[in-house]
Amino acid sequence: MKLDQGQKLLFIGDSITDAERNKEVREGGNGALGKGYVAFVDALLQTGYPELGIRTVNKGVNGNTVRNLEARWQEDVIDQNPDWLSVMIGINDVWRQYDAPLIKEYHVYIDEYEETLRKLIKETRPQVKGLILMTPFYLERNEQDAMRRTMDQYGEVVKKIADETDCLFVDTQAALNQILNTYYPAALAWDRVHPNATGHMVIAKAFLRVLDFDWGK
Amino acid sequence: MKLDQGQKLLFIGDSITDAERNKEVREGGNGALGKGYVAFVDALLQTGYPELGIRTVNKGVNGNTVRNLEARWQEDVIDQNPDWLSVMIGINDVWRQYDAPLIKEYHVYIDEYEETLRKLIKETRPQVKGLILMTPFYLERNEQDAMRRTMDQYGEVVKKIADETDCLFVDTQAALNQILNTYYPAALAWDRVHPNATGHMVIAKAFLRVLDFDWGK
Amino acid sequence: MKLDQGQKLLFIGDSITDAERNKEVREGGNGALGKGYVAFVDALLQTGYPELGIRTVNKGVNGNTVRNLEARWQEDVIDQNPDWLSVMIGINDVWRQYDAPLIKEYHVYIDEYEETLRKLIKETRPQVKGLILMTPFYLERNEQDAMRRTMDQYGEVVKKIADETDCLFVDTQAALNQILNTYYPAALAWDRVHPNATGHMVIAKAFLRVLDFDWGK
Amino acid sequence: MKLDQGQKLLFIGDSITDAERNKEVREGGNGALGKGYVAFVDALLQTGYPELGIRTVNKGVNGNTVRNLEARWQEDVIDQNPDWLSVMIGINDVWRQYDAPLIKEYHVYIDEYEETLRKLIKETRPQVKGLILMTPFYLERNEQDAMRRTMDQYGEVVKKIADETDCLFVDTQAALNQILNTYYPAALAWDRVHPNATGHMVIAKAFLRVLDFDWGK
Amino acid sequence: MKLDQGQKLLFIGDSITDAERNKEVREGGNGALGKGYVAFVDALLQTGYPELGIRTVNKGVNGNTVRNLEARWQEDVIDQNPDWLSVMIGINDVWRQYDAPLIKEYHVYIDEYEETLRKLIKETRPQVKGLILMTPFYLERNEQDAMRRTMDQYGEVVKKIADETDCLFVDTQAALNQILNTYYPAALAWDRVHPNATGHMVIAKAFLRVLDFDWGK
Amino acid sequence: MKLDQGQKLLFIGDSITDAERNKEVREGGNGALGKGYVAFVDALLQTGYPELGIRTVNKGVNGNTVRNLEARWQEDVIDQNPDWLSVMIGINDVWRQYDAPLIKEYHVYIDEYEETLRKLIKETRPQVKGLILMTPFYLERNEQDAMRRTMDQYGEVVKKIADETDCLFVDTQAALNQILNTYYPAALAWDRVHPNATGHMVIAKAFLRVLDFDWGK
Amino acid sequence: MKLDQGQKLLFIGDSITDAERNKEVREGGNGALGKGYVAFVDALLQTGYPELGIRTVNKGVNGNTVRNLEARWQEDVIDQNPDWLSVMIGINDVWRQYDAPLIKEYHVYIDEYEETLRKLIKETRPQVKGLILMTPFYLERNEQDAMRRTMDQYGEVVKKIADETDCLFVDTQAALNQILNTYYPAALAWDRVHPNATGHMVIAKAFLRVLDFDWGK
Amino acid sequence: MKLDQGQKLLFIGDSITDAERNKEVREGGNGALGKGYVAFVDALLQTGYPELGIRTVNKGVNGNTVRNLEARWQEDVIDQNPDWLSVMIGINDVWRQYDAPLIKEYHVYIDEYEETLRKLIKETRPQVKGLILMTPFYLERNEQDAMRRTMDQYGEVVKKIADETDCLFVDTQAALNQILNTYYPAALAWDRVHPNATGHMVIAKAFLRVLDFDWGK
Repeated sequence: MKLDQGQKLLFIGDSITDAERNKEVREGGNGALGKGYVAFVDALLQTGYPELGIRTVNKGVNGNTVRNLEARWQEDVIDQNPDWLSVMIGINDVWRQYDAPLIKEYHVYIDEYEETLRKLIKETRPQVKGLILMTPFYLERNEQDAMRRTMDQYGEVVKKIADETDCLFVDTQAALNQILNTYYPAALAWDRVHPNATGHMVIAKAFLRVLDFDWGK
Repeated sequence: MKLDQGQKLLFIGDSITDAERNKEVREGGNGALGKGYVAFVDALLQTGYPELGIRTVNKGVNGNTVRNLEARWQEDVIDQNPDWLSVMIGINDVWRQYDAPLIKEYHVYIDEYEETLRKLIKETRPQVKGLILMTPFYLERNEQDAMRRTMDQYGEVVKKIADETDCLFVDTQAALNQILNTYYPAALAWDRVHPNATGHMVIAKAFLRVLDFDWGK
Repeated sequence: MKLDQGQKLLFIGDSITDAERNKEVREGGNGALGKGYVAFVDALLQTGYPELGIRTVNKGVNGNTVRNLEARWQEDVIDQNPDWLSVMIGINDVWRQYDAPLIKEYHVYIDEYEETLRKLIKETRPQVKGLILMTPFYLERNEQDAMRRTMDQYGEVVKKIADETDCLFVDTQAALNQILNTYYPAALAWDRVHPNATGHMVIAKAFLRVLDFDWGK
Repeated sequence: MKLDQGQKLLFIGDSITDAERNKEVREGGNGALGKGYVAFVDALLQTGYPELGIRTVNKGVNGNTVRNLEARWQEDVIDQNPDWLSVMIGINDVWRQYDAPLIKEYHVYIDEYEETLRKLIKETRPQVKGLILMTPFYLERNEQDAMRRTMDQYGEVVKKIADETDCLFVDTQAALNQILNTYYPAALAWDRVHPNATGHMVIAKAFLRVLDFDWGK
Repeated sequence: MKLDQGQKLLFIGDSITDAERNKEVREGGNGALGKGYVAFVDALLQTGYPELGIRTVNKGVNGNTVRNLEARWQEDVIDQNPDWLSVMIGINDVWRQYDAPLIKEYHVYIDEYEETLRKLIKETRPQVKGLILMTPFYLERNEQDAMRRTMDQYGEVVKKIADETDCLFVDTQAALNQILNTYYPAALAWDRVHPNATGHMVIAKAFLRVLDFDWGK
Repeated sequence: MKLDQGQKLLFIGDSITDAERNKEVREGGNGALGKGYVAFVDALLQTGYPELGIRTVNKGVNGNTVRNLEARWQEDVIDQNPDWLSVMIGINDVWRQYDAPLIKEYHVYIDEYEETLRKLIKETRPQVKGLILMTPFYLERNEQDAMRRTMDQYGEVVKKIADETDCLFVDTQAALNQILNTYYPAALAWDRVHPNATGHMVIAKAFLRVLDFDWGK
Repeated sequence: MKLDQGQKLLFIGDSITDAERNKEVREGGNGALGKGYVAFVDALLQTGYPELGIRTVNKGVNGNTVRNLEARWQEDVIDQNPDWLSVMIGINDVWRQYDAPLIKEYHVYIDEYEETLRKLIKETRPQVKGLILMTPFYLERNEQDAMRRTMDQYGEVVKKIADETDCLFVDTQAALNQILNTYYPAALAWDRVHPNATGHMVIAKAFLRVLDFDWGK
Repeated sequence: MKLDQGQKLLFIGDSITDAERNKEVREGGNGALGKGYVAFVDALLQTGYPELGIRTVNKGVNGNTVRNLEARWQEDVIDQNPDWLSVMIGINDVWRQYDAPLIKEYHVYIDEYEETLRKLIKETRPQVKGLILMTPFYLERNEQDAMRRTMDQYGEVVKKIADETDCLFVDTQAALNQILNTYYPAALAWDRVHPNATGHMVIAKAFLRVLDFDWGK
């Protein structure tokens, strides 16, 4: 298990991370961790390793692209002083190109995405004990689907940056692909983006796996 | 133009037909026609042929399968005494097989679908001046996609029944396919099922085309 | 068809243009185009000419007079940088003289109306590829009715300015008069001002006609 | 003054009588008399003749036609045992012919109107000390307007029945015409039917005049 | 009739004047005049003298004392530029002494009341064509009741100031006393302060009487 | 202390007893005892005599007269099987005569009041260990006030019945009179009927006094 | 892994099982499984064994005791025809003895508890493939605490019945005790009964362990 | 009785003091004193000593620690100019250490607690006629319970400061312990912190006792 006693683990990202978290309450308040993979990771950490006392913080904001992360990075990451940082971003960067194709201002194309994400990660990596990069994903089986193909390219950017910067890497798309073998996308997500509890659990398990989480505990 | 002076045109179907219609108000009340293709058809009919005084009635109910239509057919179709009847059903019959695969009671497989629909149409055809059958559809470009493939099969059943029973036939899937050439599904529908106004307008236009609607008017 | 590939078409006006648009969401959001003629124009453009990718923006605000338009013109028109601009204003300028006759501050009389509208149009015409001026209207058959008569005079001002400034001109009053031959005003609008879907479709069709919209597509 | 000590005065009618009365509270409760002419009549009676102790009851129901009155006449009139009864009905009987022209079931044409109203009045007249019949009205200046013309015909039916059955007669249309000389309809009613407080006060004053109400008191 | 063509009549006061007026809408909006004597005065003025076109404005604010009036006098009276001004204040000045006896800061004793009211009236009288001063009142029959006695003293102050400054004077307490001969206070007001419609009509009639309103019109 | 170990004490009455109790929850639920004297009595009993385990039940219903108590007596008293019963009724029986003087059906005059109350008490007295009768009251200092005078007469009826039937007697009017020496009625109750917490505490203390409650505990 | 392909697993119990499940939607609807251990078990089953297609049903109802389970057993268990049944009941049976000690009707003492639970389990065991009995629990470290001690006794009853009837047995109290070594009860549950996500995950893991769930999958 | 004629008594503290007080209304408004011991103290003071006219003010704010009190002390205590001040603080200072053990920023450890409280009390004592210090408490019988033990230590700090600064001292824990002999904590408080009316009455009585309140009055 890679996390140590008393460490703070902060998640930043878009609506997948946010997962309807209650932004009206302060940290520790009811619903502050949302209903998604962050809450599952926390519950599994507390259950498996209560003695470590890991402090989990959710800073996901729905609708965010990497451009939004950059704007709030100082306040929501640096000022929070986390020991571990987890970042999952890119879904909206891609999605807006497909669901709002005429509104170019909303699109974050792959060059801007790569440049911005690399800059954030490079600057932050030295300040934290560990950093986990998770790929964006799309709940679509067909790899030739236009949006799935684009999402995969963004995922490769994430992998590249993780390699360059000594981050742990979680391939959420790969993890979700396995369950897509059994379940049609509509059984996991209304819109092929926001997964139900099963999808979030897949992500949580993939996340914990890179931390060498011991399920037997 | 196939509709005549003073005729009543009744639409029955699922949420595509329903389209958030206000079920609290009586016919003619604010929002009673919903926000979808039925409202568009009515507005275009009143605009193009005000002198005909066509009376449009919306009896779509969201979530319905052909099994639900059968249960309320007497009250919502026969007792309403329409001159023209339009039926679009089947999306939920198929969708439940994909989004709730474990709950078999929700599924209406193709044999039951065909049998029930044929029975309803056969019995009703002699009682109305005209009957329009519209295919169910799925906003998915990939014809090899499992759910799209199933939906196409249900659409073929509709076509077969239309041919057998002297109904007008609207291939909504074909009409929507054209716009899918330009727009990715996410730009037309959150869930590949419930279209935005553009998608509903495609359906409305396809519907009016089989009535020989004259756009120049 | 006068619109070209990738152009932005912006509508400004009063509640007829606004049509209960959701001002809480950003462009492209659910309900952002309202429920009126702007939404119909957009759906018909996307349906008929999906390959053009016309971007429609609604900047109508209910209750507005030309005085209000002037106050927000820089932000809501110029800063938006539209290729095409459509303006329909004047109903409230007239209506307040009739429904709040004692509150003179609310009235925008014809001289101020003409002067303000001409100034806005003259300044803006060179900055856009095309500009459509639509008359205000009143759903009253009786041309001798006091308010109808005043509205017609404001409509003539619009025509005059359109002629002077090389704008396309839409005579919405004339278009609506035709349907008033069949339907009594109460069948189209509760208050003879805010039309139902039929009335909005009449306006949308009149608008598209001046753009040489091809219905056969 | 025609009303005597301790008498109960009951009003029945449509939304003009109803005037948003609170139907959740029992008689005497807050808002039970509505916000219209009934409340004004009561306030003026209590103010001018407190010593008489007139008990006012409002049984108006919005949307009602004479057909609805007939259905609830036993419960809402006869069982209430009023000393005086006031009836104003007919606006919806006419209006539906103009705002919902295609839905014939909603229309109450003049023969049914006359027959039903006469029957109700004839049967009830002997059971009450006094009965006031008020004409329906339409806030439209133009006597050639189609709906105004029809409303005037229904008003003549009311006058005829009042004459036949020894009822007091209130010509509300005539009373409202006077104020229409000064104010355009839009200043009195959003929809030419539901008057503001001024319009309701005109009706209240016309009503009280036929009772020989003394304003000097 | 003392009011002239086109004059603006402004009412200022406490909750009796306010009477649940809708402060969210602008002048002329639905409910802007409240449900009390101001609305009744307006309806009776418009009904009796429509040709005068009197513009009525309600600036009552519930809970106000004369101290509050002073604080908002510039904005709510002077800046409004009324032709006629009507002032009814003092109920809360007295009431707080009785319902919150321990919270001295809320009390406006008679010396402060007299001084403040005189100053406001003296300064404003020359700027308006007419000024009406109405006494505060208490719906209590027993003249020996402590709060009634205090209220009567405040009423005498109003009379004195009216005499000194050439204002019209309305003795609302005297007008309401008459109806208290017949009705017990509980039949007119839940709390002996906020009258029902009957009580408001008594005030409206007393107000109009000093303007020489002609009821025969 | 008259109450014994494990006894059930049931209160029935009108809104003074009800005191906004939450009728949606079952006994023991949050707010089930209301906010008035019943809740205070219970809190004081539990605090002073926790070892007795007295079970308090509130069956007050706002607006009730003795006529309503009779109608629900079987269900709300007899079926509950209380050891001790407390009854306070009569305020509405009197109040309606003063606040709704024209609606005679609402009035419960003193003969009916006495007869009904005596019948209920006589029948029930043998079935309970103890029965407390509390007078209705009116927060009015002036004993010559019409409604206060009537209320006092009803209070005398209560005393008479208590004497006849061996009930404990609580003179709430007398208890409240003492505090009215200091506080004006408006400081205790908005409407001279529904007391604030101070008034309810006066009632609770008077109630406990007849039970020989020991405050020193 | 004890569960087989396509089996239905039904959970019945009290608020711990219910966990705010949405009872307005049908099976499979959003929120139908609640937010507690049932939802976690389902997500972990679907994630670990998607190919099995286990169908999870939640029939927990908050506030229930074993007495309530008996009343709805036919409808909510037998008629549902589950392959596996999980039962966790008893918390309210005990809790009411401590939080509502005076209301004996609410208490289900240990004899009734044992008898009822045994009867239900015995009758049902032959009709299902497997049956899991879970103990009730109390998030209290102190084994001498009165309510904890009682809860432990009810837990022993569960164990005894499980042994007698060949059921799988989950000792939730024992599982939760481990985490109570680290966390004070207030960190897990507001009221020592309703756990947060961590507590629910402990229960879910204990449940899955008896099914020989393989975490490595 | 220690309080004198016309004195102002101000309570400051956390949610126990706040007790859902309505912070939207000003002093004296409905619900301004909350539903807890402050409201009970006030009702008992007004009932027992109405002639003293004690003015009670509630400045409790839920969730507060002594750190929060310090931040608002000037505005909420000093500027209010009370004659008597009552302070009960510390529950949240302790509770956060147990319910949010990982979020150290929320914890107010005993040294900071003592130092801050002493400073506030020392500075304020000379400015008021009397000052009452109440201990924080925890509704837990087991004195070896970790959180109860910590709470007791904070209570001893309060006692020490009271002794040093000539304050009256209320040992709320001791007072509540007595009732805990009879009732299990769950019968008094959902969470062992927020008492029901019985618990608040215990506190109110303990408070009044140190003021030499005479219950016989």
